[in-house]
Amino acid sequence: MDEIMDAEVRSAFYRVLHARRDMRHFAAGEVAPEVLRRILEAGHAAPSVGLMQPWRFIRISDSRLRAELAGLVERERQHTAERMGGRSREFLRLKVEGILECAELIAVVMAPDDGTIFGRRTMPEEMALASCACAIENMWLAARAENLGMGWVSFFDPAQVAALLRCPPGAKPLALLCLGPVTDFYEAPMLELRAWRNRLPLSSVLGENRYPGEEKK
Amino acid sequence: MDEIMDAEVRSAFYRVLHARRDMRHFAAGEVAPEVLRRILEAGHAAPSVGLMQPWRFIRISDSRLRAELAGLVERERQHTAERMGGRSREFLRLKVEGILECAELIAVVMAPDDGTIFGRRTMPEEMALASCACAIENMWLAARAENLGMGWVSFFDPAQVAALLRCPPGAKPLALLCLGPVTDFYEAPMLELRAWRNRLPLSSVLGENRYPGEEKK
Repeated sequence: MDEIMDAEVRSAFYRVLHARRDMRHFAAGEVAPEVLRRILEAGHAAPSVGLMQPWRFIRISDSRLRAELAGLVERERQHTAERMGGRSREFLRLKVEGILECAELIAVVMAPDDGTIFGRRTMPEEMALASCACAIENMWLAARAENLGMGWVSFFDPAQVAALLRCPPGAKPLALLCLGPVTDFYEAPMLELRAWRNRLPLSSVLGENRYPGEEKK
Repeated sequence: MDEIMDAEVRSAFYRVLHARRDMRHFAAGEVAPEVLRRILEAGHAAPSVGLMQPWRFIRISDSRLRAELAGLVERERQHTAERMGGRSREFLRLKVEGILECAELIAVVMAPDDGTIFGRRTMPEEMALASCACAIENMWLAARAENLGMGWVSFFDPAQVAALLRCPPGAKPLALLCLGPVTDFYEAPMLELRAWRNRLPLSSVLGENRYPGEEKK
């Protein structure tokens, strides 16, 4: 495949990439079936170690099930607040998810280990999980290209979500993806806009031949 | 940020996404500094749980260090072959990495746990790792938009790579990214072209309200 990407394609790609945000505020409206399909196909086009394709996507169309998942997330939000010490109140004022407002809710579950050795002898769970995360990032970017917001909710006990979604033993829920129309996209990560935490300069995460930021010998 | 992505932008984005491949064959040539910078910025623009930004990028410019890393990878490839049973010879004929041929080699290391609770009380390591994987997927897609190949090499013992890169305790190397010009991009995943393993149909990884593929009640 010798397809050359020209400057226009490159520019369009970077526009999508840099405009992607973790969204927690959603607007009314639906996701057209063909759009949902393209987003799922983007996820399924992700790289995976040894081509194991460990991601499983579960569309939540049952509103009672969605409400049960929302209940689990709310309980975990409270547990998190209890661990936040002096920032507990500030944390509880942040909007951290839009599960009940988003048009579509999609769970992403890591499949039980299929025994793949290729590329993961030394890091089996890590590499399966990394492949699932690549799929989610592909969906996130695709959603932004479709002018839809997406948020990755990780406020839950994976065992409880696995039970609700009737997952087989060894499967591990990683994400509840909130997807749908939004009024507008945040200008910067919401946690930065709300002064919860700042983005680091690239230079602070970049090293040459050794881990960055440590004292030079 | 109300920027609307039109059909042309969307089409360009999907072209890049679906043309991305895990590359192990590289051609001669360099990566211009501004191109490398855009790829690293794409990684650093990834989402991260609680905005923790746990990724660290280490550019390997020292050819002796690159050779040492290549040695670790080759040893792990042999260990993997020993675990492959009847497919051991077939495995050893596959090209699994291009560490010595690629223009640029970049290690991605997960930073030591910084104690972030937000969004990861129940899955601390998983969510930090997922954030690093999103950064790598962003870099992979950016590389493709720049007409460069990238391959994620995970054939190594993370402790040995951590020692070579002088990582602090608790840091975990996840990837050696081979990046550079290629002669052409694979039409399909190389492991599929070489009949190592096939891609699954989307329908087999997709469920509604429950885990896919299990017997319906």
